[in-house]
Amino acid sequence: MSVVTVEVGLGDRAYDILIGPGLIARGGELIQQRLPKARAAIVTDENVAAAHLEPLVASLSAAGNVPAVIKLPAGEKTKSFDSLQTVVDDIIAARLERGDAVIALGGGVIGDLTGFAAGIVRRGMNFVQMPTSLLAQVDSSVGGKTGINSPRGKNLIGVFHQPKLVLADTAALDTLPLREFRAGYAEVAKYGLIDRPDFFAWLETNWREVFSGGAARIEAIAQSCRAKADVVARDEFETGDRALLNLGHTFGHALEAATAYDGSRLVHGEGVAIGMALAHRFSARLNMASPDDAARVEAHLRDVGLPWRMADIPGALPDAEALFGYITQDKKVSRGALTFILTRGIGQSFIARDVPASEVISFLKENHAG
Amino acid sequence: MSVVTVEVGLGDRAYDILIGPGLIARGGELIQQRLPKARAAIVTDENVAAAHLEPLVASLSAAGNVPAVIKLPAGEKTKSFDSLQTVVDDIIAARLERGDAVIALGGGVIGDLTGFAAGIVRRGMNFVQMPTSLLAQVDSSVGGKTGINSPRGKNLIGVFHQPKLVLADTAALDTLPLREFRAGYAEVAKYGLIDRPDFFAWLETNWREVFSGGAARIEAIAQSCRAKADVVARDEFETGDRALLNLGHTFGHALEAATAYDGSRLVHGEGVAIGMALAHRFSARLNMASPDDAARVEAHLRDVGLPWRMADIPGALPDAEALFGYITQDKKVSRGALTFILTRGIGQSFIARDVPASEVISFLKENHAG
Ligand SMILES: NC(=O)c1ccc[n+]([C@@H]2O[C@H](COP(=O)([O-])OP(=O)(O)OC[C@H]3O[C@@H](n4cnc5c(N)ncnc54)[C@H](O)[C@@H]3O)[C@@H](O)[C@H]2O)c1
Ligand SMILES: NC(=O)c1ccc[n+]([C@@H]2O[C@H](COP(=O)([O-])OP(=O)(O)OC[C@H]3O[C@@H](n4cnc5c(N)ncnc54)[C@H](O)[C@@H]3O)[C@@H](O)[C@H]2O)c1
Ligand SMILES: [Zn+2]
Ligand SMILES: [Zn+2]
Repeated sequence: MSVVTVEVGLGDRAYDILIGPGLIARGGELIQQRLPKARAAIVTDENVAAAHLEPLVASLSAAGNVPAVIKLPAGEKTKSFDSLQTVVDDIIAARLERGDAVIALGGGVIGDLTGFAAGIVRRGMNFVQMPTSLLAQVDSSVGGKTGINSPRGKNLIGVFHQPKLVLADTAALDTLPLREFRAGYAEVAKYGLIDRPDFFAWLETNWREVFSGGAARIEAIAQSCRAKADVVARDEFETGDRALLNLGHTFGHALEAATAYDGSRLVHGEGVAIGMALAHRFSARLNMASPDDAARVEAHLRDVGLPWRMADIPGALPDAEALFGYITQDKKVSRGALTFILTRGIGQSFIARDVPASEVISFLKENHAG
Repeated sequence: MSVVTVEVGLGDRAYDILIGPGLIARGGELIQQRLPKARAAIVTDENVAAAHLEPLVASLSAAGNVPAVIKLPAGEKTKSFDSLQTVVDDIIAARLERGDAVIALGGGVIGDLTGFAAGIVRRGMNFVQMPTSLLAQVDSSVGGKTGINSPRGKNLIGVFHQPKLVLADTAALDTLPLREFRAGYAEVAKYGLIDRPDFFAWLETNWREVFSGGAARIEAIAQSCRAKADVVARDEFETGDRALLNLGHTFGHALEAATAYDGSRLVHGEGVAIGMALAHRFSARLNMASPDDAARVEAHLRDVGLPWRMADIPGALPDAEALFGYITQDKKVSRGALTFILTRGIGQSFIARDVPASEVISFLKENHAG
């Protein structure tokens, strides 16, 4: 299996995403090609360090670049001000300069935090993403959005800071817990549902090989990166089109909040899976899409083992009004209307700016588990 | 006295600097013109709040925009991670969105901290500078460099985040302690010494009126902003020419560090004043500039009441080797040579990339106070 390259076309901030097996162990050489002479610091979490740190350290050292290593606890709580300060202090303590490289080795948590730190030390250092979760490979490592959480909301603090290089080692996903893999797969399916109907159909046929790790895995990740890179190139700073990437996320975020971000009940990608199914069902209810398309989405999510309806979430959920309250915490309601990502069918999503609040509440009541 | 406008030409990040008396009391109206509908938060320090907060709050409120107020202790220690977190949390708690305005009302400390916070909340909010110290009006509020200090060095953490508008109320400077005014004046003189010999000559004639607050004050601030804006427009992200702004700062920073940043002995602008005199004297010693020009710089600094030689610093200084150590903490020595801003005469500064370390040490020995 060979390595696939996806270019992210952002003018003088353009960079390559390399996708394939074994890239972590080649990190030293690949980084040196792009950033000759750069010294390096690796930021990682304890789970990822146990499985993948050593080959990266060895490879950098072999290239004459013995890295500083900054290791943090795993989990969403690590996206905090405290961890940011730790990473920033440690990078400065390692005496790295602007032209040196800060490497994120881990999932989206490590990538978001590290990118933010790299964006603010000396007002912007070189940054390299080595995403090790499927979600990070297809979503969070692409596009330059970095950040941490505020006690008042997720991802509210951060910067846009594009990496110089992304190395997505597809073999590293073999140590990822299956549930995390599935959660990341929801975002893969999302790209098909946004505007690539052929890709969604291809996934319906090939998803087993994506999970088992053949060439189809590389292909699915590459297609996802291309899809995201296209949107990002159109709207780097998220003032328009980039909102399409939130398909499934309005309902999804509300469900994550309603389950108090308790990962034992619901992880992000699972919320997105249910959210995408609901977005299609809701579009059908508004007579915008065919109910057959909604059923097709539900069937695929069920096939791969993802939850697809609220009833799939273990434990009780708050009632429809309370769920609607979580939706409006996330976004403004102006004159009784909300902005939503809706669809006219598989691969035909669009930004709807005037969805009546009353319709959302009725829909939530009809689809509520309780 | 009328208001002067200086445009900072940065393409789609271009903005105006308005300079003149009474602008704080017109803040509400002037911000509303540029950012209609934006809600606002004011960040300020206790000294500035006592003198200037009320008219700004009144003016914004009159424009229908009752601001949130975030007040911090005065002083360099406020440029810390802790204050950053406070400001960020308070902005989010005030429920401001990306299009709302974060206003810095204060000196360079408040401007640097607030600009950084505005740059990272929601990955970049609208930012308005209302500089109230001379240093902030002629230097820190122009150019978009924001940040905080690390325990390991000043200004090491931050982002480039350009304001949407700068309002420099020249009458607000009347409450500034004279010593702070003088320190800011060192940076005004710096622009003349970098590449505007006519401006330096004009200052030699008109400095009294700059201090007393007539039209010459507005003119001097406007010239300084134009000078800085020119450099910034050529090199927004400080990869080249912007280094010229560091004239006097290599020696100055070393002296600040050597006096442990004790403001009772030396404030930043005083360090810059001595640093500029030394840079001219050093250039003369290297046979690059005339000793007459060095003497002219020294005379002007002495006239306005600024320190101009190491002997002017109260208390004992470390010896020349130790001072050289502080210089190399600030910058790399590669193969025995350093980068310095030197000059061929008044208004003829340049970036010298191969200044021999041995020359610097000999020069420091000759000019040492002890
Ligand atoms: N920046 C963006 O554009 C963007 C987009 C989507 C999501 N995100 C963010 O991404 C985060 C979620 O990312 P995530 O799902 O990767 O979470 P994560 O980083 O917490 O990783 C999930 C778990 O898998 C472990 N793990 C990762 N790679 C592994 C591997 N190869 N082997 C064994 N264990 C491994 C991690 O230690 C962690 O326990 C969220 O914070 C979300 O806000 C950001
Ligand atoms: N961002 C940049 O490009 C840049 C450039 C130069 C300096 N700086 C930074 O600027 C800072 C120094 O700025 P500064 O000298 O303004 O310091 P400062 O903000 O601490 O202000 C100096 C003192 O004057 C007080 N003050 C300010 N305005 C006043 C007024 N109108 N009336 C009464 N008191 C007033 C303040 O409360 C403070 O006590 C440093 O942290 C430096 O690193 C940044
Ligand atoms: Zn997502
Ligand atoms: Zn200065």
